[in-house]
Amino acid sequence: MHTDPVAALDIGGTKIAAALVDGDGTILARVQRPTPAREHGDTVMRAVEEALAELTASPLWGRVQAVGIGSAGPVDASAGTVSPVNVPGWRDYPLVDRVREVTGDLPVELIGDGVAITAAEHWQGAARGHDNALCMVVSTGVGGGLVLGGRLHPGPTGNAGHIGHISVELDGDLCPCGARGCVERIASGPNIARRAVENGWLPGPDGDASAAAVAAAARAGDPVAVASFERAAQALAAGIAATATLVEIDIAVIGGGVGKAGEVLFTPLRRALRDYATLSFVQRLTVTPAQMGTDAGLVGAAAAALTRRTGEPTGPARAAV
Amino acid sequence: MHTDPVAALDIGGTKIAAALVDGDGTILARVQRPTPAREHGDTVMRAVEEALAELTASPLWGRVQAVGIGSAGPVDASAGTVSPVNVPGWRDYPLVDRVREVTGDLPVELIGDGVAITAAEHWQGAARGHDNALCMVVSTGVGGGLVLGGRLHPGPTGNAGHIGHISVELDGDLCPCGARGCVERIASGPNIARRAVENGWLPGPDGDASAAAVAAAARAGDPVAVASFERAAQALAAGIAATATLVEIDIAVIGGGVGKAGEVLFTPLRRALRDYATLSFVQRLTVTPAQMGTDAGLVGAAAAALTRRTGEPTGPARAAV
Repeated sequence: MHTDPVAALDIGGTKIAAALVDGDGTILARVQRPTPAREHGDTVMRAVEEALAELTASPLWGRVQAVGIGSAGPVDASAGTVSPVNVPGWRDYPLVDRVREVTGDLPVELIGDGVAITAAEHWQGAARGHDNALCMVVSTGVGGGLVLGGRLHPGPTGNAGHIGHISVELDGDLCPCGARGCVERIASGPNIARRAVENGWLPGPDGDASAAAVAAAARAGDPVAVASFERAAQALAAGIAATATLVEIDIAVIGGGVGKAGEVLFTPLRRALRDYATLSFVQRLTVTPAQMGTDAGLVGAAAAALTRRTGEPTGPARAAV
Repeated sequence: MHTDPVAALDIGGTKIAAALVDGDGTILARVQRPTPAREHGDTVMRAVEEALAELTASPLWGRVQAVGIGSAGPVDASAGTVSPVNVPGWRDYPLVDRVREVTGDLPVELIGDGVAITAAEHWQGAARGHDNALCMVVSTGVGGGLVLGGRLHPGPTGNAGHIGHISVELDGDLCPCGARGCVERIASGPNIARRAVENGWLPGPDGDASAAAVAAAARAGDPVAVASFERAAQALAAGIAATATLVEIDIAVIGGGVGKAGEVLFTPLRRALRDYATLSFVQRLTVTPAQMGTDAGLVGAAAAALTRRTGEPTGPARAAV
């Protein structure tokens, strides 16, 4: 069994978390820093180094076998570099080499953050036991990752599963990525809120114009709020159906803030999925809320490190059984 | 080396082909029958049995090690059944069992026809040497298949890569599959021709209103014909970019009648791909014409049988080196 721990890093635009995680996915030690996202790249790296230094001071460090990093993307796992959209100081930044300067000879596994949460959901969450799954985060952005044939599918650069930036409306609105009609451009939280406001929805007396506030209005029956979630659900359904039609998945797991909206999202999503997932081999596809909480990124980075280290074909979930 | 041959079946809506294929992909013997596509399912099967009977009479038959079947889809490889859209007499038809009645104890491998042409292009055609590829047929319909991590990715039911039925226009025209705005609904040959005619293009004196005639008109500078190919190229680009963004491919191979249109298709396709394949990890994606001819289905079915039989992780292409 994997009694020896691995080190996990979860690097986002808001926070940097580091942890020691054992072979059952239990977090043994954890540290966190705010991400100085607008600072120079070296300043961002210093925050990572400080977090790692706290871990290396742990009496458990000597038993650490590998390091897993889940980072905001895009990443380039083959080059060991990252270029997170929300951390402009890091462009093709050699994160793996810089981490190795702290962690020495340990193997380091780098994956995108969408791939990391997928590893976590497959190991211990809503995708457990599913050999072919799409896991998504629908939040400020829309990200994701894939499990194919029982294994995580990070792709050669660690970015596979980027469902937020597939176009489901080829003449649609311009997306910040440069394409048009991307799933994220229609279904992310800010776009749900924007569309509701544009169509006449008025925030309550507290002035909260977030997607969560739109969700509350939709639950109370506001038709404009309902319609904005229905449009997001339609885009998500088209993207999920496209994924299933391309690679054959049987479950789509949805997490993130918008995923927490509940039936306001999931009822129209299941309905729209019947419209777009039409071929016989995708009709049994189900959608379900994510089960992992805010530790998903850390647990998933640990899963990637454990899988690489053990060479188990089916990931730590089964190795730990 | 694979000196012993395999039997290959290629079952389409127009013809049924059967062949003995050696480990280098050389066709040693071949028979063909028209598909009695509108007849009773047993009549269709009789045509398959007749083709197989001719093969089993070959002096080479005793050395045959396995049977590969590529069939018009959808197929269900896990159940061994097929339901080809254009062969209404076959619905959940137990093709694998019926073939086994002729071929005895040999292992039988069933895949969809898009997966089969992908296996052929990866083994001996335009995708050779590419570990992550999408191969497509753009013709009366739009089909495809995937190579991921150096291996064919048929998916659990043998249907993965069905790019023709992903929606790139979620409010678009209704597709016969039941969804809206599918790639096939915009980019297939009949839809290229239909759009040209609807927008005022007039066939020549021979009355030929096929996509090939529209391609000829586009080459001669007819703006309506050019625009119809541009729209098809845009839909193909959105679908190819979506595939690359989801699973990371570095090449898309396009065959079929529309693929033969040449630069009338490929020039706007490459331009549109720059609009939709925007993320850093998909920007190096290239598109290229298919290299395998009309034998692609047979060669691909043989490749699937050889790969399954030898257990070679990277397919017969490398095993044969």
